[in-house]
Amino acid sequence: MNTARLQKILASVAGGQTSVQEALAELKHLSVEDIEYAHIDHHRSLRKGFPEVIYGEGKSTQQIAGIMEKIIRQENVVMVTRVDSIKAKALCEQFPEAEYHDDARMIIVQKGERPLQGKGIIAVISAGTSDIPVAREAYLTASVMGNRVESLFDVGVAGIHRLFQHQDLIQSASVLIVAAGMEGALPAVVAGVVDKPVIAVPTSVGYGVSFGGLTALFAMLNSCSSNVAVVNIDNGFGAGYLASIINRL
Amino acid sequence: MNTARLQKILASVAGGQTSVQEALAELKHLSVEDIEYAHIDHHRSLRKGFPEVIYGEGKSTQQIAGIMEKIIRQENVVMVTRVDSIKAKALCEQFPEAEYHDDARMIIVQKGERPLQGKGIIAVISAGTSDIPVAREAYLTASVMGNRVESLFDVGVAGIHRLFQHQDLIQSASVLIVAAGMEGALPAVVAGVVDKPVIAVPTSVGYGVSFGGLTALFAMLNSCSSNVAVVNIDNGFGAGYLASIINRL
Amino acid sequence: MNTARLQKILASVAGGQTSVQEALAELKHLSVEDIEYAHIDHHRSLRKGFPEVIYGEGKSTQQIAGIMEKIIRQENVVMVTRVDSIKAKALCEQFPEAEYHDDARMIIVQKGERPLQGKGIIAVISAGTSDIPVAREAYLTASVMGNRVESLFDVGVAGIHRLFQHQDLIQSASVLIVAAGMEGALPAVVAGVVDKPVIAVPTSVGYGVSFGGLTALFAMLNSCSSNVAVVNIDNGFGAGYLASIINRL
Amino acid sequence: MNTARLQKILASVAGGQTSVQEALAELKHLSVEDIEYAHIDHHRSLRKGFPEVIYGEGKSTQQIAGIMEKIIRQENVVMVTRVDSIKAKALCEQFPEAEYHDDARMIIVQKGERPLQGKGIIAVISAGTSDIPVAREAYLTASVMGNRVESLFDVGVAGIHRLFQHQDLIQSASVLIVAAGMEGALPAVVAGVVDKPVIAVPTSVGYGVSFGGLTALFAMLNSCSSNVAVVNIDNGFGAGYLASIINRL
Amino acid sequence: MNTARLQKILASVAGGQTSVQEALAELKHLSVEDIEYAHIDHHRSLRKGFPEVIYGEGKSTQQIAGIMEKIIRQENVVMVTRVDSIKAKALCEQFPEAEYHDDARMIIVQKGERPLQGKGIIAVISAGTSDIPVAREAYLTASVMGNRVESLFDVGVAGIHRLFQHQDLIQSASVLIVAAGMEGALPAVVAGVVDKPVIAVPTSVGYGVSFGGLTALFAMLNSCSSNVAVVNIDNGFGAGYLASIINRL
Amino acid sequence: MNTARLQKILASVAGGQTSVQEALAELKHLSVEDIEYAHIDHHRSLRKGFPEVIYGEGKSTQQIAGIMEKIIRQENVVMVTRVDSIKAKALCEQFPEAEYHDDARMIIVQKGERPLQGKGIIAVISAGTSDIPVAREAYLTASVMGNRVESLFDVGVAGIHRLFQHQDLIQSASVLIVAAGMEGALPAVVAGVVDKPVIAVPTSVGYGVSFGGLTALFAMLNSCSSNVAVVNIDNGFGAGYLASIINRL
Amino acid sequence: MNTARLQKILASVAGGQTSVQEALAELKHLSVEDIEYAHIDHHRSLRKGFPEVIYGEGKSTQQIAGIMEKIIRQENVVMVTRVDSIKAKALCEQFPEAEYHDDARMIIVQKGERPLQGKGIIAVISAGTSDIPVAREAYLTASVMGNRVESLFDVGVAGIHRLFQHQDLIQSASVLIVAAGMEGALPAVVAGVVDKPVIAVPTSVGYGVSFGGLTALFAMLNSCSSNVAVVNIDNGFGAGYLASIINRL
Amino acid sequence: MNTARLQKILASVAGGQTSVQEALAELKHLSVEDIEYAHIDHHRSLRKGFPEVIYGEGKSTQQIAGIMEKIIRQENVVMVTRVDSIKAKALCEQFPEAEYHDDARMIIVQKGERPLQGKGIIAVISAGTSDIPVAREAYLTASVMGNRVESLFDVGVAGIHRLFQHQDLIQSASVLIVAAGMEGALPAVVAGVVDKPVIAVPTSVGYGVSFGGLTALFAMLNSCSSNVAVVNIDNGFGAGYLASIINRL
Repeated sequence: MNTARLQKILASVAGGQTSVQEALAELKHLSVEDIEYAHIDHHRSLRKGFPEVIYGEGKSTQQIAGIMEKIIRQENVVMVTRVDSIKAKALCEQFPEAEYHDDARMIIVQKGERPLQGKGIIAVISAGTSDIPVAREAYLTASVMGNRVESLFDVGVAGIHRLFQHQDLIQSASVLIVAAGMEGALPAVVAGVVDKPVIAVPTSVGYGVSFGGLTALFAMLNSCSSNVAVVNIDNGFGAGYLASIINRL
Repeated sequence: MNTARLQKILASVAGGQTSVQEALAELKHLSVEDIEYAHIDHHRSLRKGFPEVIYGEGKSTQQIAGIMEKIIRQENVVMVTRVDSIKAKALCEQFPEAEYHDDARMIIVQKGERPLQGKGIIAVISAGTSDIPVAREAYLTASVMGNRVESLFDVGVAGIHRLFQHQDLIQSASVLIVAAGMEGALPAVVAGVVDKPVIAVPTSVGYGVSFGGLTALFAMLNSCSSNVAVVNIDNGFGAGYLASIINRL
Repeated sequence: MNTARLQKILASVAGGQTSVQEALAELKHLSVEDIEYAHIDHHRSLRKGFPEVIYGEGKSTQQIAGIMEKIIRQENVVMVTRVDSIKAKALCEQFPEAEYHDDARMIIVQKGERPLQGKGIIAVISAGTSDIPVAREAYLTASVMGNRVESLFDVGVAGIHRLFQHQDLIQSASVLIVAAGMEGALPAVVAGVVDKPVIAVPTSVGYGVSFGGLTALFAMLNSCSSNVAVVNIDNGFGAGYLASIINRL
Repeated sequence: MNTARLQKILASVAGGQTSVQEALAELKHLSVEDIEYAHIDHHRSLRKGFPEVIYGEGKSTQQIAGIMEKIIRQENVVMVTRVDSIKAKALCEQFPEAEYHDDARMIIVQKGERPLQGKGIIAVISAGTSDIPVAREAYLTASVMGNRVESLFDVGVAGIHRLFQHQDLIQSASVLIVAAGMEGALPAVVAGVVDKPVIAVPTSVGYGVSFGGLTALFAMLNSCSSNVAVVNIDNGFGAGYLASIINRL
Repeated sequence: MNTARLQKILASVAGGQTSVQEALAELKHLSVEDIEYAHIDHHRSLRKGFPEVIYGEGKSTQQIAGIMEKIIRQENVVMVTRVDSIKAKALCEQFPEAEYHDDARMIIVQKGERPLQGKGIIAVISAGTSDIPVAREAYLTASVMGNRVESLFDVGVAGIHRLFQHQDLIQSASVLIVAAGMEGALPAVVAGVVDKPVIAVPTSVGYGVSFGGLTALFAMLNSCSSNVAVVNIDNGFGAGYLASIINRL
Repeated sequence: MNTARLQKILASVAGGQTSVQEALAELKHLSVEDIEYAHIDHHRSLRKGFPEVIYGEGKSTQQIAGIMEKIIRQENVVMVTRVDSIKAKALCEQFPEAEYHDDARMIIVQKGERPLQGKGIIAVISAGTSDIPVAREAYLTASVMGNRVESLFDVGVAGIHRLFQHQDLIQSASVLIVAAGMEGALPAVVAGVVDKPVIAVPTSVGYGVSFGGLTALFAMLNSCSSNVAVVNIDNGFGAGYLASIINRL
Repeated sequence: MNTARLQKILASVAGGQTSVQEALAELKHLSVEDIEYAHIDHHRSLRKGFPEVIYGEGKSTQQIAGIMEKIIRQENVVMVTRVDSIKAKALCEQFPEAEYHDDARMIIVQKGERPLQGKGIIAVISAGTSDIPVAREAYLTASVMGNRVESLFDVGVAGIHRLFQHQDLIQSASVLIVAAGMEGALPAVVAGVVDKPVIAVPTSVGYGVSFGGLTALFAMLNSCSSNVAVVNIDNGFGAGYLASIINRL
Repeated sequence: MNTARLQKILASVAGGQTSVQEALAELKHLSVEDIEYAHIDHHRSLRKGFPEVIYGEGKSTQQIAGIMEKIIRQENVVMVTRVDSIKAKALCEQFPEAEYHDDARMIIVQKGERPLQGKGIIAVISAGTSDIPVAREAYLTASVMGNRVESLFDVGVAGIHRLFQHQDLIQSASVLIVAAGMEGALPAVVAGVVDKPVIAVPTSVGYGVSFGGLTALFAMLNSCSSNVAVVNIDNGFGAGYLASIINRL
């Protein structure tokens, strides 16, 4: 709560337009709707520019439905991440306007057209075929948040020429999301040829010492290219979200 | 090398203005100046918008000086990171225009005024007094790269009201850099109250299970706030660099 | 065995009321009832103020039933933790007075009313919806052990204002239990605003570098607030137990 | 800031005793004194019952002195932890009322007598001779914070009878702090014979797979005794602080 | 192959009793029977005093049966470890003389009586009920190898008096095997009261930072009692085997 | 793309045989066939001497089939690794010329005879019966790539004489692949007796502190024998591939 | 305290020879001599067959001297481990009968001849030259404890024939101690050729992924030979101690 | 010892030319020269094609000198790795024919010219300036072992065009050694453009999550290019040695 708003309320109290009790209530009333198992944060779409996104893992279908119902009344868009196909089926039956993207394991409810909010293009690049689900989560998130998004899949460093064929796309992007598992080298290579921010997403693809994405994560954090930052393993949603935030600046 | 430039060279070959050997040379000539122990990448300031930055750790004074000399001839700014005070003294004697910032262990050589390139304000926030060296590295990097930078130190989560006193500064920034060691919670809290990108920098401050910054790093990657991305432990330079890149979009 | 009791037995021997063999037997007779696969420690409810609690994981239904049967004869309360719903069904059929709490995966047998033993209020706070099972285990344990317990769920640091809405509850508690997964920042923030002991419970909620609760654990141990101590990952029972012990002082 | 205080200020504004600007100032004025490198939190001794303690590691003598000077003006006690003997010498010269405890590496400034605040006895137990520095840090912290403290050193599990000789002391304590390195088994054994809270402090004593205290930490978190909670490795200060908080309930 | 046998063969060659080809064959003929997927080492029962034991995990029923068949022809005892109940059923049908111990997941084929070979008593002690399977594997192995074995289960350090009740058994043993999970403290305590070798077996019992037995393993290796050595996690078989070897000296 | 080919194209442009547009196309045309989810790299069999191999894990049957179809048109051999038996069945029905090796979990399609390309013998050695699947993957890969391959299984260091029986085979090999799990000691022993390159393959066989092959991996990297290099855990394919590359030199 | 002794004291109380107070004292009097920083356990040489050994690391010269002085009065032998040469010099001046072994960093005080107590020979084997300090610590410990000890150094698995040359020594030993760093393979190989207990000592020798002995430790715990148990990294003392205990059986 | 030699000795015994004692001696006499602290393996230069190399770390100057002296009498080349400049000075004074390479910390003694033994060119490539010491160790090792070696330094993936400028060198090599720290991506990229074996050497260059080379190691083991194998961190010597072995095939 910033100074201006506080000043306004106080002035209104001083002027007698607002009683002490009313002011108290207003100051303490936060837009958090309390249901038994969740504090829904309606205030977030004002504070953060996008409504709360539901993290589906570890929540029952019933819990997800309960939260969706509350959000859907007030927002034009609802996103649920990490929903398996069984839960998704049940939820889509309950919310006919919901669409399930099984490659990204996301449910999206979108009312009306979402206005374009991002300035430039967001490029989503993946190193291998197996990284696509994570890349798709990023792609969908950025799209839903009102950006133009382009994707480029399976262009890993073992055949680096595959990447360089697509210099036009790479150079045209304002923000780049690069998903890679195994040795996680692709973000460093991509970042070396552009002067734009690169968001690296390690994926859990690989075996042995890939450690479920940890090696890719550490490799990305060690990138010699300085225009790289990293999000959690398999966190395509976070990458898409952050890219949107940057693309709006 | 993009299509346009390739087309131009080929057209010139077709037109006879350029011989095959000349074209060959041009295509193969990359702006990499080869000294015995380093490939200096003069092309970078075109390709990436900022000249190569010298990573001082593990290089001898003589090696650093050699690379500085080459860069300084062609660029308006030279930055050397992770320079201890002994090497710094020797280098500043050799390059009188160099300035050493001992809190951030950086050498900066700047010829003339650097034009302001960033659009908004970059805020650099640190959780504790001990995190200041890393925060200062970020601060100086972003400043040298042409941004307005504000800083706010020692506002960690154990006394969260210290942070909320500075809401004005926090809300005014376009990009935020948040450095924290120990439990690394500050970036998540800051990111929860802004709708701008937050670059989290884990620092190696702490003892026991802080693991030299690893706990802070992992905590930051686990942030429930989605507008956060992370760089390597103690990598203030990288955070400042990436914030500059974002602030120019 | 304390000095007083030893003295009493010895005096009785000296006075001839007790024979050497009887004394020997008494000294060696410990209240441990030996069944084939377990040493049941009936002495514990004297020594520790609460009967032995059965850790259900890795024990067969038959083993749990066997131990329950022995304890139930001598105690007013029996608690079994980490019981899945299949075992629980079988056990509740065998012990009709048993109640299964599936959110916390606990079985509780309580004969009569449990007198209130704790002095103040124990507050149980969770960062997210997914942390509720662990928080509930703490809640039930503290309740069964005779305390007034209040709970507050889903108030994590990404929307820190949700927490501060509940200052009244937080300030009224004598002991606070704070469960959080992912970045585990909530206990440090809560501890920063109270002058009471905070027991932090890391939960295994999260993915990627949450490492099944390890990141939250380490973050909590690094808390800059000094009124925090930590129990094992997902150990809601231990937190509830310790809070009860403290609340009785 | 609690409701009562807010209500009072608002009433005063409503009544015209306080102007909007004064109320604004009061609401925004937090007792945080800003010096260049630290936010000193004078408000803490109200909020938390004890003034801010200075963590000496990673701070220069000059920085420590600067913070001490500010605190010493307003408080009856100043504590600095993790101060090596060189810094300590300089600080004790500057602050003649300061006393340096080299076994615990602490500086304590105490004006006048500290009134006894704790209700019961705090027992500080160490497993080996090498754990004494950590145990002493806990001992001094709890003493300075106004508790009766007893200590018992070098009673590790390899000769468990050494511990059982001191049953009287152990049984008389209200809160127990147990420091141990290597296999970290002592807290579990102690906790098994008392019905009071045990704060376990892993120490970095050991070699090979003691991993600088990590094995002791994990062993303590795995304690089968449920009246145990754990603080960071070598964090004697935290254990002493928390024990004081509990002992005041 | 020792000097004596080599000398004998060479003398036989020198004396013309053995031809060069025969000597060659003899020297090269090792008692290794080659089947497609395994080199069975019949020589082992001479070299090591006990026939090869079959590690059942990761081998198909058919592979185990094939190896059993070969060994059973030449040896009086066959042991298969880590056999699940499904494989066990099939194997016991094929080898009617085989007996399956489901608590220890072992198959034992024993022809006739095994003569007592060990000199003293081997005591097998477990900390908890859940450690019994591992303890039983040790118990059976030591029994089959011709030792008198006594067991004592569920006497962990959280109620240390349960252990001390059984001092007679503990003091009577020549070799002690102590299995414990969680904090793994029991072997150190036991070893502190005897002057005999203690073989510690960490078990994978526990959760959170028990790390599947790793914490117990490290704690045991850190034991302050010097008469302790450790085997791999859950390796009851190895502990029983080594105890037998020691008990024969 | 090497100089020679570039020169040829440029000369053709200079001579007017090739238009600028044609040259552009040729230079940019890389033999990468783009299907929706994969960039197939037909150029690889020229560049690397062997067509792209399909990594089956994490790809759907449909995706694998799609890629196989594209490769099979242009190449004489197709290899798919890490295919479970269910996917394999479906694929073998679709591609009747495909053969599934269930011990190695590989699909191989081979048109006509593969000419022998390797110069010497490749020996594939495994420490235990359980390591055979990995060893077989190496065996098949090297065979398909045109080498003479010999194998020797179950000759681990616990009965080192089993290995030394086969000195002839070991000494005859040009390249040796040694697969071992658990303590991973076999490659060091083998490498100590030959003067040829040894490729060590750690396998995930073992339990407890074998850490799914990590201990074997680290042991192999620590080999005191200098003619050893290591590939990822369970990477029989990589070992067979690299051995083939070496055997062709 | 065993039954017999308890019975005797009780009988004496019953008979009036011992008063209740005297019995109390006797029962509570344990042979632990309390100096300020250590509980010296004189009872140990009765209970464990060897006096307490002083672990020198982390103790000051003064502390070591204090403990030595107390032990030396009552025992024929004093051992101090992990003493650096500076402390050793001071201690040897104070205790002229003390001898410092700098290769093993041990101080030994021995009064008179130590009678031979072990039955067989203890063999101490090291893999490399750099492992000798640890091996020497084991050698000296076992010697001082009254055993015949033979040593064999620098016979690692990279030249396995060096080991097999010494079959006579290896086969003659009753207990074998095998120290190895790096890949830690030697104990498994040695254990494969003997039917006696092998105590494996991992050493911190190596670099990179030797992890200061952790790789050797894990490899040894994974040994396929079942007559192996392991002690902590660099714990030559523990190995020598345990071997002595075994050799006395 | 192979069959042929054994047959010859046996035939000689059968023919009476060799006595049993002589044969025994011959069979048992291995070319291992025993000095107090090392078994020098003169047989190695026959068995392995190159004399034993001395690992300097952890050995005293005197120990190194002792071993050098023994080897130098029988071999044309002596190599000592990991020698710091202080030891090197002393050794070079004692062995005037020794040459110290301080960049690679190696001592080389070479008598006469070493004949070229390798067939092709070995290329040694490093990612950064700081990786040069490791790369130089590889370079010198391969040179001394009789190979033509070319080097290419500071061509990491952040400016990938620097690498592609040197396609001629890369394509001309028979074996490639690629050293890289930080994210360790270079070997995968290089391996993607050649059809020759690539030996990857992770270096300990980097900070934060480079973990002293571990991240680079894991990334290299995860390489999607299959013609890559890896050696220990900073093991330039091993890479050079193995490359030589391969280059001789």
